[in-house]
Amino acid sequence: MSSLEMIEAAAGRLKGHARRTPLLDSPFLDELAGRRVLVKPECLQHTGSFKFRGAWSAISALDPDTRKRGVIAYSSGNHAQGVALAASKHGIASVIVMPSDAPQLKIDNTRALGAEVVLYDRATESREEIGAALAAERGLTLIKPYDEPLVIAGQGTVGLEIAEQAKELGIEKADVLVPCGGGGLTSGIALALEGHAPGLRARPCEPEGFDDTKRSLLSGRIVSNTETSGNICDAILTPQPGEITFPILKRLCGPGLSVSEGEALQAMALAFLRLKIVIEPGGAVALASALFRRDEIEGDTVIVVASGGNVDPELFAGALKHIP
Amino acid sequence: MSSLEMIEAAAGRLKGHARRTPLLDSPFLDELAGRRVLVKPECLQHTGSFKFRGAWSAISALDPDTRKRGVIAYSSGNHAQGVALAASKHGIASVIVMPSDAPQLKIDNTRALGAEVVLYDRATESREEIGAALAAERGLTLIKPYDEPLVIAGQGTVGLEIAEQAKELGIEKADVLVPCGGGGLTSGIALALEGHAPGLRARPCEPEGFDDTKRSLLSGRIVSNTETSGNICDAILTPQPGEITFPILKRLCGPGLSVSEGEALQAMALAFLRLKIVIEPGGAVALASALFRRDEIEGDTVIVVASGGNVDPELFAGALKHIP
Repeated sequence: MSSLEMIEAAAGRLKGHARRTPLLDSPFLDELAGRRVLVKPECLQHTGSFKFRGAWSAISALDPDTRKRGVIAYSSGNHAQGVALAASKHGIASVIVMPSDAPQLKIDNTRALGAEVVLYDRATESREEIGAALAAERGLTLIKPYDEPLVIAGQGTVGLEIAEQAKELGIEKADVLVPCGGGGLTSGIALALEGHAPGLRARPCEPEGFDDTKRSLLSGRIVSNTETSGNICDAILTPQPGEITFPILKRLCGPGLSVSEGEALQAMALAFLRLKIVIEPGGAVALASALFRRDEIEGDTVIVVASGGNVDPELFAGALKHIP
Repeated sequence: MSSLEMIEAAAGRLKGHARRTPLLDSPFLDELAGRRVLVKPECLQHTGSFKFRGAWSAISALDPDTRKRGVIAYSSGNHAQGVALAASKHGIASVIVMPSDAPQLKIDNTRALGAEVVLYDRATESREEIGAALAAERGLTLIKPYDEPLVIAGQGTVGLEIAEQAKELGIEKADVLVPCGGGGLTSGIALALEGHAPGLRARPCEPEGFDDTKRSLLSGRIVSNTETSGNICDAILTPQPGEITFPILKRLCGPGLSVSEGEALQAMALAFLRLKIVIEPGGAVALASALFRRDEIEGDTVIVVASGGNVDPELFAGALKHIP
């Protein structure tokens, strides 16, 4: 099965389970960006981020005997919640391995979505060892966050929807800006656009100082960030592009873009004010790129993915002071 | 033409112009409400509220010669922005008469959406006289905010969508909670449901102390609020139900519900946290009713309209401290 066929098959499995998010716009954002801006609010997806799509895609594709033994994931963030809900909607168990110093709210939310949360001590324990032991003991299947073809296929359904929605609007050519961590969402979208909207080009967006994908694309090989923490865009601070995702990004994507924390906060504030959606810092880097990197973007329309909205109330309230 | 046919005709005129908003949900809200809660986020509509629908419905129905002379409205709020954008998308002029002490941001926004804003002094001038003089001089058509059949028909398209979406989900019976000011949205939805989903029942929701519609329904005749200001739910503080809307509400709606300001703020915070949408206080009273008046609601599913999201950043940041 080709990558595109895998995405189409994932779309079939997601039908009636994932939300088809709309495209939003505002004349005020168009004015700021100097071109038409269309925003795909994946913050409105189940569990507040696109991650539900990949999790559902992977879990729904397991053979029934394997699936009924349950799944496991390592994550303290959006992937954890996506896996927990997708598993519980399939009626199966999920185990999420999280650091014991993760915010209590995230632990509580993941449990409330039906997962068993197993905590480990970051300083003295290895989550991989704990996870491998649990998986072996119970026959759990590991759901990786991005470097997994079925997860990429699920995230690619965002790209299928963008291709359809752009066609309805008569848009044949545009940059599609995507918040990029390990590259699962960006590579999935790029594959879907290659097949269904070849005039649309995916471009990864990252925080400045954590622009491993942008630099990897420039150098033609995987390069890493020197830091993996210390930026408010926590959802997309992966050390480097994935081994499966990077070749896809390299073949299909336009140059990467990067923005400052302040620009991400301004984009969050503008999305609040003009679109009435809640986006988290990592989910705001593509909108920030559209608004504040206009000279690096081509065409009279830009499509932006707002990938998630799981942000602490205090941080969000602070962002609202950044309305330009 | 029957009321239902007017709504269906309005839906035809709105197609491709208004957004078809989705139905959102969250297991966390279901848990709080003790039943399934489905939220229709009209805050995601153009200009951040359902008012765009009624404005577009009325303007698009004018005969071309009348329309090209332009329209006028009295409003400092959501209706103003809806009329301004609907007029400018029709390529016609709009005049919005606003009090000179309206917040500068609202004046600026209305102008930016293409309207000519005419300011008047609340203490010494009558907006009706100013408006009538301008209308006569320029041949402008007045677009009323709610007591106008074409406006009610436009708002009724929310009800058509709810009927369709409920059917897709297999929901045959439910209360539909609607934030209610003058009653344009509630009566339009009630008429649409009567025709297309007779098992769904519209119910008006209001702030405590400004529950003129709830009391009017109880007494069977129009009664007024003693105050028309002094509550954060500014978008729905009308003095009394409309003369056209009230007979519709009386014939079709279930009993009204009312909530406190604190409950509206909590509902805003929960919509932020669980649905990733921005709703204003007046737009949150239906969700607040679903969450905090569970004993007054019937059935295992409740549908809630979140009617608008035009809220000042400071007020919104304050609401986020109300997460229960």
